[in-house]
Amino acid sequence: MIKIFNPDQSKWAEICQRPAKDAAEIEKICYPIFKEVKNTGDIAVRKYSQKFDGLTVTDFELASDLMENAADEVPAQLKSAIQRAYDNIYAFHRAQSSEKLELETTKGVLCWQEKRPIDKVGLYIPGGTAPLFSTVLMLAIPAVIAGCREIILCTPPGKDGNVPASILYTAQLCGIKRVFRVGGIQAIAAMTFGTESIPKVFKIFGPGNQYVTGAKQLSTRYNTAIDMPAGPSELLVMADSTANPAFVASDLLSQAEHGIDSQVIMVTTDEEMIDLVEAEVTEQVKLLPRKNIAEQSIANSKLIYLADKEKAAEFINQYGPEHYILCSSDEEYFLRELRNAGSVFVGPYTPESAGDYASGTNHTLPTQGYAKQYSGVNLDSFLKSITFQRISDSGLRNIGPAIEVMAEAEGLMGHKNAVSIRLDQLNINKRK
Amino acid sequence: MIKIFNPDQSKWAEICQRPAKDAAEIEKICYPIFKEVKNTGDIAVRKYSQKFDGLTVTDFELASDLMENAADEVPAQLKSAIQRAYDNIYAFHRAQSSEKLELETTKGVLCWQEKRPIDKVGLYIPGGTAPLFSTVLMLAIPAVIAGCREIILCTPPGKDGNVPASILYTAQLCGIKRVFRVGGIQAIAAMTFGTESIPKVFKIFGPGNQYVTGAKQLSTRYNTAIDMPAGPSELLVMADSTANPAFVASDLLSQAEHGIDSQVIMVTTDEEMIDLVEAEVTEQVKLLPRKNIAEQSIANSKLIYLADKEKAAEFINQYGPEHYILCSSDEEYFLRELRNAGSVFVGPYTPESAGDYASGTNHTLPTQGYAKQYSGVNLDSFLKSITFQRISDSGLRNIGPAIEVMAEAEGLMGHKNAVSIRLDQLNINKRK
Repeated sequence: MIKIFNPDQSKWAEICQRPAKDAAEIEKICYPIFKEVKNTGDIAVRKYSQKFDGLTVTDFELASDLMENAADEVPAQLKSAIQRAYDNIYAFHRAQSSEKLELETTKGVLCWQEKRPIDKVGLYIPGGTAPLFSTVLMLAIPAVIAGCREIILCTPPGKDGNVPASILYTAQLCGIKRVFRVGGIQAIAAMTFGTESIPKVFKIFGPGNQYVTGAKQLSTRYNTAIDMPAGPSELLVMADSTANPAFVASDLLSQAEHGIDSQVIMVTTDEEMIDLVEAEVTEQVKLLPRKNIAEQSIANSKLIYLADKEKAAEFINQYGPEHYILCSSDEEYFLRELRNAGSVFVGPYTPESAGDYASGTNHTLPTQGYAKQYSGVNLDSFLKSITFQRISDSGLRNIGPAIEVMAEAEGLMGHKNAVSIRLDQLNINKRK
Repeated sequence: MIKIFNPDQSKWAEICQRPAKDAAEIEKICYPIFKEVKNTGDIAVRKYSQKFDGLTVTDFELASDLMENAADEVPAQLKSAIQRAYDNIYAFHRAQSSEKLELETTKGVLCWQEKRPIDKVGLYIPGGTAPLFSTVLMLAIPAVIAGCREIILCTPPGKDGNVPASILYTAQLCGIKRVFRVGGIQAIAAMTFGTESIPKVFKIFGPGNQYVTGAKQLSTRYNTAIDMPAGPSELLVMADSTANPAFVASDLLSQAEHGIDSQVIMVTTDEEMIDLVEAEVTEQVKLLPRKNIAEQSIANSKLIYLADKEKAAEFINQYGPEHYILCSSDEEYFLRELRNAGSVFVGPYTPESAGDYASGTNHTLPTQGYAKQYSGVNLDSFLKSITFQRISDSGLRNIGPAIEVMAEAEGLMGHKNAVSIRLDQLNINKRK
């Protein structure tokens, strides 16, 4: 672990730096695949599923009986755990729905703002060694609450062509009806352009490896939106002298096991905490099945001592962590000063795992410092705001003259005329 | 004007198509400038200000006395109009602020969501023939309400190196303290990377020509966010037999005068309306100073007759207009069916100009069909949501076992262990 003591503020930017991604290189790989999927649809998607994943897929869309039978294959204990998580995530995201906002800004000038669902959304669930059914919960629940009309899910199947039952069961539980077994760049391209069997969507959500991330970024050039740019997962723990070193170590390791590029940081205002946590990490890592991965990212992790809480709070804002665990006797101070983070875990009994699975908050969060300008996925990610205005004849009399003056000052007489012609008509009506 | 009668639904996609933009070509122009600004800062910005705008700029940032003196140069009538618009825009955007959301999802598991301002934002105001002070209102007011700590404004100066007084006055009125005279690709690059004199920002807002738009798109590759992708401005008017053809024509022309690539569409359920509106347009365009521009975009405008309101409503959703004026005796139907639009103008006395300047809604809106997945600029555009959770010991007893089961099923034992180690400690405490 890399230990850093009281770094000068001029060094912070360097410490906060994430591994550079070569977006241009990945885009070069994605671009021709996008072009081919655009031009030949399913043929290209099939070709790249074969090439990258070694899969010969006839039907991308799963038959509905496969979805329905999935429940039989999921152990009862897991189903009950998923249900508990579902209930919490549903409740917290349902609570995020907002009322229509209405205001008469000037007498006779009524303005309002309403949120409407994005019609078509695509959820991407990565494949790999374990089935990420928790990400299905995090994306499907708010999509369904928002009322999106068409929600599709793409996920790469295993070598046998099957999608894990836990993913299908969770999708079904959330109300997802259409699941496609396709992954990687070709899945993102298919959702961007639409093919014979995979519909085009307006916004793509979900995590993925660097190719999926690059493909999502490229899709934004073709009238598609994405949830957010993505990079390796991150955790920053702020631990003062009251923190429990064993708990802190377990949290650092839960992040470290994600991948060798995981970003793991502890900030402490107690110099002794650094050795205490390191010792705990060394013990606990031995017991992890993903020990090899965890050890590699732990080797690059940073334990940073900062002399006072002011410096610590400012450093955390400069880093802008995806996950931020706060173990301090002065929670109030750190919460008040916080400006940049994805999701915050407060107190000794709030591990990151809680938010990853079941507390109710979303686990699709901004990495790479994007917490400075992006929200994590939430209900609003599946909605857009539309504004409305209705102006009465007297309302136009009230604000029309101001519009005429401003339009003329901007040299836009057509804009002015659209008001003048109406005010003239109102004057004629009045004289009658 | 292009007249289309009862087009088959299979032709709608073609009718809805916007002019294609060659993003890759523009990016090729932007990329080397970005690289140079990143490497040499102000030197590169100065070079390209000279090259593209013919400007020799010593200090990019305007002196504060220039800002303060601007008020003396703006006519009293214009100041009073701007104040009226300011009040309405301020009131409507202030009303968009939301409370902290808090929910106990399970006993002992408290989740909450809070919005915090984006620390550093950059507002881009285009130059050109007329000073777009209205756009200053639309971007600066929500930025200030959101509480962004650093708000900078970049705008290209005139050939004399000066920024119009109306822009400076409006910026000052809104509370903007730092204005930089720099435009184009080099301004966006400067805000993306930061230079000696121009600060880096986290999110860039504002309209611009295709180069500014391309540069904004490119900036998203360098940890910068943008308000939305942009294209030529658009208006769709839905007019049934009760609409006033002269009013409709004035609205179409107010859009047409923006630029030769403006998108102007009328949808009507009354066949006769097409000739009535065309005749009015032909008369009214003669009187416009920007007649040449308006005539060119009007030549490409589309007047579309659809046989019934169901088809009309569906066509409008497929188009997803930036501005949508609704002149119908059945407003309720069209409002209920609406899924995709930026801003909606309801009724005969609500011209688009009202929203462009003074009703209170924002005029920075999604074009190119992006209304299908993007909101226009609003207060939330300057904020991000952060989620929080605090779990008590009993709360972790309640949801911990579900987390353990799910983490194990996903093969993430480190995630499970972060819960188990805490539950073990609670059991030890209990036995004591």
